[in-house]
Amino acid sequence: MGVNIDRWKFGILKKGPRNLITDVPGVKVGHTTISNDNNQTGVTAILPHGGNLFKSKVSAAMHVINGFGKSAGLIQVEELGTIETPIILTNTFGVGTGINAVVTYMLNENPEIGDTTGTVNSMVLECNDGVINNIRNRAVTEEDVLSAIEHACEDFEEGAVGGGRGMRCYGLKGGIGSASREVTIAGKTYTVGALLMTNFGRTGDLTVCGEPIGRKMLDEYKEERGSCIIILATDIPLSVDQLKRCTHRAQNGLARTGSFTSNGSGEIALMFSTANQIPHWDENPVEPIYRLHEDAIDDVFRAVTECVEESVVSSLYHAEPLKNREGKIVHSLKEYL
Amino acid sequence: MGVNIDRWKFGILKKGPRNLITDVPGVKVGHTTISNDNNQTGVTAILPHGGNLFKSKVSAAMHVINGFGKSAGLIQVEELGTIETPIILTNTFGVGTGINAVVTYMLNENPEIGDTTGTVNSMVLECNDGVINNIRNRAVTEEDVLSAIEHACEDFEEGAVGGGRGMRCYGLKGGIGSASREVTIAGKTYTVGALLMTNFGRTGDLTVCGEPIGRKMLDEYKEERGSCIIILATDIPLSVDQLKRCTHRAQNGLARTGSFTSNGSGEIALMFSTANQIPHWDENPVEPIYRLHEDAIDDVFRAVTECVEESVVSSLYHAEPLKNREGKIVHSLKEYL
Amino acid sequence: MGVNIDRWKFGILKKGPRNLITDVPGVKVGHTTISNDNNQTGVTAILPHGGNLFKSKVSAAMHVINGFGKSAGLIQVEELGTIETPIILTNTFGVGTGINAVVTYMLNENPEIGDTTGTVNSMVLECNDGVINNIRNRAVTEEDVLSAIEHACEDFEEGAVGGGRGMRCYGLKGGIGSASREVTIAGKTYTVGALLMTNFGRTGDLTVCGEPIGRKMLDEYKEERGSCIIILATDIPLSVDQLKRCTHRAQNGLARTGSFTSNGSGEIALMFSTANQIPHWDENPVEPIYRLHEDAIDDVFRAVTECVEESVVSSLYHAEPLKNREGKIVHSLKEYL
Amino acid sequence: MGVNIDRWKFGILKKGPRNLITDVPGVKVGHTTISNDNNQTGVTAILPHGGNLFKSKVSAAMHVINGFGKSAGLIQVEELGTIETPIILTNTFGVGTGINAVVTYMLNENPEIGDTTGTVNSMVLECNDGVINNIRNRAVTEEDVLSAIEHACEDFEEGAVGGGRGMRCYGLKGGIGSASREVTIAGKTYTVGALLMTNFGRTGDLTVCGEPIGRKMLDEYKEERGSCIIILATDIPLSVDQLKRCTHRAQNGLARTGSFTSNGSGEIALMFSTANQIPHWDENPVEPIYRLHEDAIDDVFRAVTECVEESVVSSLYHAEPLKNREGKIVHSLKEYL
Repeated sequence: MGVNIDRWKFGILKKGPRNLITDVPGVKVGHTTISNDNNQTGVTAILPHGGNLFKSKVSAAMHVINGFGKSAGLIQVEELGTIETPIILTNTFGVGTGINAVVTYMLNENPEIGDTTGTVNSMVLECNDGVINNIRNRAVTEEDVLSAIEHACEDFEEGAVGGGRGMRCYGLKGGIGSASREVTIAGKTYTVGALLMTNFGRTGDLTVCGEPIGRKMLDEYKEERGSCIIILATDIPLSVDQLKRCTHRAQNGLARTGSFTSNGSGEIALMFSTANQIPHWDENPVEPIYRLHEDAIDDVFRAVTECVEESVVSSLYHAEPLKNREGKIVHSLKEYL
Repeated sequence: MGVNIDRWKFGILKKGPRNLITDVPGVKVGHTTISNDNNQTGVTAILPHGGNLFKSKVSAAMHVINGFGKSAGLIQVEELGTIETPIILTNTFGVGTGINAVVTYMLNENPEIGDTTGTVNSMVLECNDGVINNIRNRAVTEEDVLSAIEHACEDFEEGAVGGGRGMRCYGLKGGIGSASREVTIAGKTYTVGALLMTNFGRTGDLTVCGEPIGRKMLDEYKEERGSCIIILATDIPLSVDQLKRCTHRAQNGLARTGSFTSNGSGEIALMFSTANQIPHWDENPVEPIYRLHEDAIDDVFRAVTECVEESVVSSLYHAEPLKNREGKIVHSLKEYL
Repeated sequence: MGVNIDRWKFGILKKGPRNLITDVPGVKVGHTTISNDNNQTGVTAILPHGGNLFKSKVSAAMHVINGFGKSAGLIQVEELGTIETPIILTNTFGVGTGINAVVTYMLNENPEIGDTTGTVNSMVLECNDGVINNIRNRAVTEEDVLSAIEHACEDFEEGAVGGGRGMRCYGLKGGIGSASREVTIAGKTYTVGALLMTNFGRTGDLTVCGEPIGRKMLDEYKEERGSCIIILATDIPLSVDQLKRCTHRAQNGLARTGSFTSNGSGEIALMFSTANQIPHWDENPVEPIYRLHEDAIDDVFRAVTECVEESVVSSLYHAEPLKNREGKIVHSLKEYL
Repeated sequence: MGVNIDRWKFGILKKGPRNLITDVPGVKVGHTTISNDNNQTGVTAILPHGGNLFKSKVSAAMHVINGFGKSAGLIQVEELGTIETPIILTNTFGVGTGINAVVTYMLNENPEIGDTTGTVNSMVLECNDGVINNIRNRAVTEEDVLSAIEHACEDFEEGAVGGGRGMRCYGLKGGIGSASREVTIAGKTYTVGALLMTNFGRTGDLTVCGEPIGRKMLDEYKEERGSCIIILATDIPLSVDQLKRCTHRAQNGLARTGSFTSNGSGEIALMFSTANQIPHWDENPVEPIYRLHEDAIDDVFRAVTECVEESVVSSLYHAEPLKNREGKIVHSLKEYL
């Protein structure tokens, strides 16, 4: 139990100071954790920057690794390459309420939405925490979502908190995990960060930096319905098509921990860059954006892979054990170290 | 005003008896129309068949013509090729409530969802009716959605009703339009049907069967934010990849009415076939599905194109004039015939 | 027969001075036409700019309208968003030779390719001209391809020339058609141009600016195997994801002429912008590119639609009649005016 | 050097009798190896079945992991879901000749192609072997391609042979690797097989079943331009959309060996099933195809992942060392065991 996560070395790049997605300047994360006799669930909010997201959108792209999922807002990201709201992670049946809460938040912040300008695209991503949480209760409220947004900060908890409260991963207690890496380009240091909500994988497959830890456990290949949401952030200037290329590398990080991307696992990667912000209002119709030459992009791909791999393990490492709906303990990775 | 829509001939295929999407056996449509001093909006529900949609899913595919939109449920259709709930059409800020209502409906019908089996993928598609409707009021309730599902039937109204209540199309009053075509394959007659929620296009571009009607109107090329949702149904046995190919032909129907697919117009086509239903529970792991030989598919593509084209015009033809939020009349196409 | 193509008005935007794709500054087009007792076929080459395309690549994107086709080079355009060679249009069985010729050309121009740097991605697009041309002869040689590249210029012929020599469109003689439109953004005038190789459509469906010309002809709905290659060029600063959005609008232009996108018609749109050129060698890893605000993009979408529509008709208008392999005349559109 | 590849255990599924892609009944593989003072390159041909592939096509799907590549034929696979020719693997500048040779082969076998029926879609996939092979020589001839097709058999060599002759992988000698797995569904045993042409990865990243072998080697993270072609075969009845889902799992196998999917690595997965063959001629327009229930698909996904992982290592294990163009030895994995 005294074993530290630093026993493992996830790749070769330098970690950011917090080793969290919030090492990307401006990014903040907030949780609402719901834990009571009836429910173990919650909400995690990621704010790409501290300003008005609708007025200054971040460049973004997404990749569907396996689309068995109910996340909202992705179609518009694919078309327009921007995110214009906080990003909400919650349980599957919280998506409708998540959208309603984000709309509430955005209408309050921006009186012109739906009046003198168009509407707004809410980003709400989900996993099914139904093994631990009684998801049919639909416990998440609009207030829970708004509270997660309001409490967003740079130092946030990992493990069985926020949207990750009831999640299970490789048969162990999963949840929220995060990591970051530094990338130096032309003498300037940038950051890539990841935040995952982990809810996928079969016990026997779990591999940490090559150690087949899962094989030591009972019920090795018990069926597991799950999912994984992968939020990636950076301050590197990347065009939308480059961000798209980066999101394709998230799958590498999951695979290194043992995943074969099972049928029921909705796995979606969403990445934004704070470097090329796009104004809502057209001040100058032609504007420069900054773009990395492809010859310099490999370290970014490597950083994405490393951050995702470490975030999976970090979510397991930080999660405390919890009982599932049938009263059986869902163990923590720490118990096996 | 006495002019009939039959003055125009949309293509060459034979129409179904109702010339509605409900000519596809089993398909039903219901509306909830909200019309009061504060709001002009509503909900339209399409039921692919009359049985339990979760237990017997319909094969489906989707195509994003232009992804400036907030519709929910499409990612899973793309991955799994099935629809397992009623399809809801409403205004943009009704999507969250739409999802919540569909989840309520599905949990009531299926006690095993979220308990002994996984969750459910709600299909909720939208356009922004904010020119006519005060969309910031968020007038659509869960009850409105459930009522549209409950009142689904084979003979339904077109025009400024249901989800189409507040929509505008080519600067005229738009809304719900529908059409159907018969396709004969190896001596057997099948049906292709379309239902559109129309909210796109600039006045001056409107063309009906080659007639440049839009050029006769005032404010010809006034900017128009809009969208168009296209639901396609058939009883022809098509595999998922063939349904996908069909959805790509919907754009032809819009283009024939004058559209150039403007930036702000979220245009999404969703098609299902009632022929190859997929059971939720795995009774036999290997099952036959029926598939059309590609040499016989051209009439299906033609039917999709014709149904979509006619549905646009039918939505305009049936819509009554209505005042917009500024008190100006949004005219009916009939006034120009 | 004395009727001019200007009897029709394709849209509302202003045409460029030549009304050809070469109105986009720097773009050149060359043909090699093969016409003898055994074959009616050829090659058309489009050069995005007059410099070294490998060293200074043009930003590009593609969209597959209907992928029943054998064109080469598209996968890399989709990934990297660049074109680095001349674009070759020829018959289906000329693709292998087309690639070989482009490799020859590029190796000659760039001694470092395949030695001190990587390889090169040849763009070769095709239609099947087998109704008129004896395609099994495989008449196109590497010299034909190189000759088309060498003879590229700004004033080029349309009709039954180059790669379009043996093509058929709407049952009439098709071939090469081109058009251009001007778009003014923040006081500066830019150009959008299209060049099509047309080989699609059924006679009875042909519609020109709303006139159902096809219905006047014999053999109205005779089956037609075909395809259509759509090359789009502009000097407007567009990011790769914006170019992608533009290519989706090409289908509108085809649909307006009567197409329902038949099964056998391989229809592919490829667009490049000369504005944001990407150097092969990484001089500065972070570089600005210029991007249009989405609020200003609608006229570009409209220009694409108009250019494609007019190019189809222009290919028909300029093509002289020719005998097919069975000795029957394939008529010119002019004969029906 | 006496070390056997069986020191490693790649996953948990049972291997087929040969542990080669040819364990899938009907599949054959042939090589032409070119090895002389000027060139180290070649051709590998995969025949999905022993009959006439044009008349009886195999169901197929593809996935582009990273599209920095020049492979041909993929666009039509994506649209129609069929393969109708042998699959050719060769070096990048052999693609044009590869297409020409496949066309020659198909025209000989099928006098109706290009005459009374349409054309044919040649599948030719490539990696750049330019570090070892003088690729500018363009050494591959049509005869080499035809010879590989003619010599296809069930017992074929792995390593530095055929298309893999000049390939390099993780800084070691790469080439052709193959593996197979058995999957039992409803009491019946099926096979999944993979054949890879490996030419990707950086030395320091190489990981075999968790062993970080690459870190023991010199020049650990030297830049590597590469690619990887992944051919997957099965006799399991899968629909086209299910084959597509399977191809997405190939990336897991690569990632487990240490890949982060570098910019220059063109990685493409192509999968076919021999179970649902599609006739070229439309005998019955509506035909059954067989499809696995999604609840039974996880073992197929696992088999894809395991086969790809093992094939990478098998290509390294079987490849003999070879000098690169600069005269330096490219080592074999066996030298490090």
